[in-house]
Amino acid sequence: MRARELAERFPIVSLSTDALTAARTMGDQRHPGLIVCDGDSRPHTVLPGTQVLRFMIPSYVQDDPALARVYDERGSDELLTKLSNKTVQDLLPRRQDRAELPVVDPDATTLEVAAVMTRMHSPVVAVVDDDGRVLGAVTLSRLFEVLFPTAPTT
Amino acid sequence: MRARELAERFPIVSLSTDALTAARTMGDQRHPGLIVCDGDSRPHTVLPGTQVLRFMIPSYVQDDPALARVYDERGSDELLTKLSNKTVQDLLPRRQDRAELPVVDPDATTLEVAAVMTRMHSPVVAVVDDDGRVLGAVTLSRLFEVLFPTAPTT
Repeated sequence: MRARELAERFPIVSLSTDALTAARTMGDQRHPGLIVCDGDSRPHTVLPGTQVLRFMIPSYVQDDPALARVYDERGSDELLTKLSNKTVQDLLPRRQDRAELPVVDPDATTLEVAAVMTRMHSPVVAVVDDDGRVLGAVTLSRLFEVLFPTAPTT
Repeated sequence: MRARELAERFPIVSLSTDALTAARTMGDQRHPGLIVCDGDSRPHTVLPGTQVLRFMIPSYVQDDPALARVYDERGSDELLTKLSNKTVQDLLPRRQDRAELPVVDPDATTLEVAAVMTRMHSPVVAVVDDDGRVLGAVTLSRLFEVLFPTAPTT
């Protein structure tokens, strides 16, 4: 199997998309992340859901989740939904290593896709053609579905 | 919202479950991971899908995904499906830090769940009661679905 056959439609947002729309897209479609493209439609990065959470959580709570107890049930829900007036750009980590994007070309084998996923701890890999157009994405779930079909193959 | 309300049924395997069954379960149900319980049904760890991939990929390919090109399409698919005679125990990293499992109690708030996910880079958190029984799991997708419903709440 090649990446072109594994690729599925995947939500694409831009750096200027508002953060709440991005978060809703992830929740609504149960995607593990989003592909972020810049102005010229080339993939800028993949934004995993955990990155969105990280942005919303005070750093002392990230360091010690037990400190989350200082927020009660309502305060906790409110804190996590404060995405108004933010864009996708605001959610990205400061230093973007553009040399290392979870991106493969359409001819990439399953092993290449898997290697990129494990190396970059990303459950999503964008499939991009020579012109830089995003053809879709391969998710970890899709890779498993194809590699390990439920009906025994032996 | 509390973890008990967010928890969904989630596949549970044991250390002795064969690895192929575990991989098929992840693919079939499109889950981002599995909860691994030990002999007394207490959660031992959460096995993310990327860990299963990591086990199957030669270390030099993990270090440099471009080297995956030494395997052709067929060779790549074959390499990745070599899970026969392995158990879930074999897929786990050597050093298990049991003090840091992605586990919360049923009363955990959304913030606690989110903090554990970001701290442990895990898109799945097991919800476990005082007796150590697994009530289910909260996935990142479910958390987003609840925090950011598609219909505007304002």
